[in-house]
Amino acid sequence: MVNEDLNIDDQTINEELSIDDLQLHVEEALRAADKEQLDAHLEELHGYDRFRIFDNLDEQERLGFYQLVEPKVISEIFENAESDVVERYLEEMNVQEAAEILSYMATDDAVDVLNHMSAGDITNYLSQMDDEKAQAIKDLLFYEEDSAGSIMAGGAITVLETDNVKEAMKKLVDNAPDAETINVIYVLNEDKVLTGVVSLREMILARRNQMIHDIMTERVIKVTVDTDQEDVVRTMRDYDLTVLPVVDDHNYLQGIITVDDAMDILEEEAQDDYYKLAGISEGEKVRSDDDYYIIPSLKKRLPWLVSMIFLSTVVSFIVSLFDPVLQAVTILAPFVTLVNNMTGVPGIQAAAVAMMRVSSGEFEDDNELLKKFIFKQVLIIVAIGVIIAVIDSLCALFISRGNILIMLIVGVSVFLSSSFNSLVGVGSVVLLHKLNLDPAVASGPLMSTIGDVCGVTVYFTTALIILGAVGIM
Amino acid sequence: MVNEDLNIDDQTINEELSIDDLQLHVEEALRAADKEQLDAHLEELHGYDRFRIFDNLDEQERLGFYQLVEPKVISEIFENAESDVVERYLEEMNVQEAAEILSYMATDDAVDVLNHMSAGDITNYLSQMDDEKAQAIKDLLFYEEDSAGSIMAGGAITVLETDNVKEAMKKLVDNAPDAETINVIYVLNEDKVLTGVVSLREMILARRNQMIHDIMTERVIKVTVDTDQEDVVRTMRDYDLTVLPVVDDHNYLQGIITVDDAMDILEEEAQDDYYKLAGISEGEKVRSDDDYYIIPSLKKRLPWLVSMIFLSTVVSFIVSLFDPVLQAVTILAPFVTLVNNMTGVPGIQAAAVAMMRVSSGEFEDDNELLKKFIFKQVLIIVAIGVIIAVIDSLCALFISRGNILIMLIVGVSVFLSSSFNSLVGVGSVVLLHKLNLDPAVASGPLMSTIGDVCGVTVYFTTALIILGAVGIM
Repeated sequence: MVNEDLNIDDQTINEELSIDDLQLHVEEALRAADKEQLDAHLEELHGYDRFRIFDNLDEQERLGFYQLVEPKVISEIFENAESDVVERYLEEMNVQEAAEILSYMATDDAVDVLNHMSAGDITNYLSQMDDEKAQAIKDLLFYEEDSAGSIMAGGAITVLETDNVKEAMKKLVDNAPDAETINVIYVLNEDKVLTGVVSLREMILARRNQMIHDIMTERVIKVTVDTDQEDVVRTMRDYDLTVLPVVDDHNYLQGIITVDDAMDILEEEAQDDYYKLAGISEGEKVRSDDDYYIIPSLKKRLPWLVSMIFLSTVVSFIVSLFDPVLQAVTILAPFVTLVNNMTGVPGIQAAAVAMMRVSSGEFEDDNELLKKFIFKQVLIIVAIGVIIAVIDSLCALFISRGNILIMLIVGVSVFLSSSFNSLVGVGSVVLLHKLNLDPAVASGPLMSTIGDVCGVTVYFTTALIILGAVGIM
Repeated sequence: MVNEDLNIDDQTINEELSIDDLQLHVEEALRAADKEQLDAHLEELHGYDRFRIFDNLDEQERLGFYQLVEPKVISEIFENAESDVVERYLEEMNVQEAAEILSYMATDDAVDVLNHMSAGDITNYLSQMDDEKAQAIKDLLFYEEDSAGSIMAGGAITVLETDNVKEAMKKLVDNAPDAETINVIYVLNEDKVLTGVVSLREMILARRNQMIHDIMTERVIKVTVDTDQEDVVRTMRDYDLTVLPVVDDHNYLQGIITVDDAMDILEEEAQDDYYKLAGISEGEKVRSDDDYYIIPSLKKRLPWLVSMIFLSTVVSFIVSLFDPVLQAVTILAPFVTLVNNMTGVPGIQAAAVAMMRVSSGEFEDDNELLKKFIFKQVLIIVAIGVIIAVIDSLCALFISRGNILIMLIVGVSVFLSSSFNSLVGVGSVVLLHKLNLDPAVASGPLMSTIGDVCGVTVYFTTALIILGAVGIM
């Protein structure tokens, strides 16, 4: 598949060259230890493609790569990788090389990587960096995990209210090479307090002698350093922002959060919710290299399974208490599953809906809306309870070959236990949210096993009452 | 809470004025039918806040709002709302007013709104617009739902390879007011084919007489009009893009997709996956107004519940077949739940992990990676099977007050059925993906009910074999 005519030096790179071809070219240049070729191959590639190619190298090739490629270029490549992957690669180098690469990385990315390391390693790396960078990293490491402070980056372009557009434009051009973004320029007053925001578009369209104060927007959408990252993402999404400024309590600009970080967080949080619903304590990393290790996966799945075993044991224990009933009326046994499934799943559905609504943030400061939502959920729960009770009891009638009592027992218990469990689902999500705990733990396997406990108890109790009423027990 | 001193006219808007205060001011201006005041209140607000305030008005107030506020301003407000909400508000106006507002909206947003309407209504609205806008909308309406074509917008800034930076900058300034974004400028050759891309930052840093061809990046990350929206989002996220160009098969630029649209899609797709895992056919809309209606919610939850009832009926039927066994050995009954839970949940976990990995797109053209992933999953499944079988059988020993046979039956059947069901989970997700079907349907309640079928069958069969071997049955 290698294109033999390819000659990088005279600018004839075929734009449609596939990643696989480029991979081969890079590996060839590495074998030949040809730095010039390697740099030429890397140059036209987007950082993410460079990383993909790098990531496919074997250890021997990677060691050659570290020798041949400038630390600055390696740092650019690493900015396209997940932080735990970068950490693993840094471990392959000596501390000095690794520290140099880290110090070239954007501060927020470097902090992400360091957060995977032990305190000792962090100190070790920081001591190898120049003081300014080390201090910038320390400042960010200080913020609580998942707060705006821990994910923000430096490199915002700031101008003064009293600048005119020409002066501001000069500041922008001077700072553009190192700036995280140039689309949005923040405006400070003489006390360095954030008072406004101007888009580059507005600057370009304004007259050169206009005062920044006159063209800026005063109502700046912003967050503080301790805002939770979920709220950061929600703010950026609602206001369609590509950059969000982060301020301290005194309205001093501390950093900015860019939309690419927000997208990563959005995806991460969505995956976390998904995994929790499936009963996995923390997302199994989407990473090829992890496919060699099974222990981390076991650690994520077993806690839920083991806690469920104990909850299921309670269910079995409850059923065993009803052994005399079962001995007398063995026909009851087949319908335990029918009732349990129709208890657990409506509960999960109700909890999942509440979970998504709560995490959308719409109830944050609107108790009226929350009340309306809960009221609607109660209506739905009752309606669903009636419908599935009718269908389920007809199925029970069929399986039991026309046993009206079984039909009655199944119908009544499905209605009662599905309604009760669904209310528990909605209620616990709302309650956990109000208590500032993670509502996601209330969903999934937990709801389904609590549903089982509730299902068997309601089922056998209903059976006892109805069979007692007709004189069978 | 109203600040009596507030006087909009002399520019003393307090930046920290809360949304609630502004809401009251807007409502006041509406009651007084004071257009000037109303415009002044709206002016300093971000579009999303304007929408929040508008959305809180009652119908009477909204009708006044339509009278007082310019259609162009209303269109800006509507661009911050979900398309089905906009559709509902447009219905409150006459066709001409609504069409005017639609024609002021960004083409992609207008198409989103029209997609909620009947063909007749669409024709009606389009006939009221000027020909150019109507044609632009028709062009987009033509693309398949969820394709890049249907979500792209026009308004990209394009320059020619042969322009110099000064000429290109002039084109940018001329087009900036209507452009969707000015951060990225696309480069066309003389045949109008997309050949490169330049960032505004690169333009600002380049010398004014440099040729665009010499500063542009030739490897343009792009998608075609029929690329699926999930791949669009993945591409933007992987490459950290804020804008992605959409081309046709001949590499002509058709439109661009901006990161705020990508974030909305990412959230929507994540919610869809979440709801499917919980057994809800389609996301219940995160919308306050829907809280008055329960039928749409029932329609989304009942299909899963009803199909599960029928699957559970199969389970009950299987259990009823074993009635003679149960009559002979009633002690078997309590452990059905213990086995079933430990069959369903590991299956859901395995399916969920496969689901997230598959939807991350990493196996798209890498069968080696997929094989490695499946191999690892098999190891995990077996390991989990052994561990939960041991714990579960000890619990069974405890509940059955030391019945070694029950311990053996529960242990063996938990291992067999959990492994089998987990393999089905991973296998069906991978298979559905390979067949280009939505793998999300294989997870959640379906896996859990298939787990029940598998659990009871394996459990009673194992019981029969073991009890037969020791001569009890």
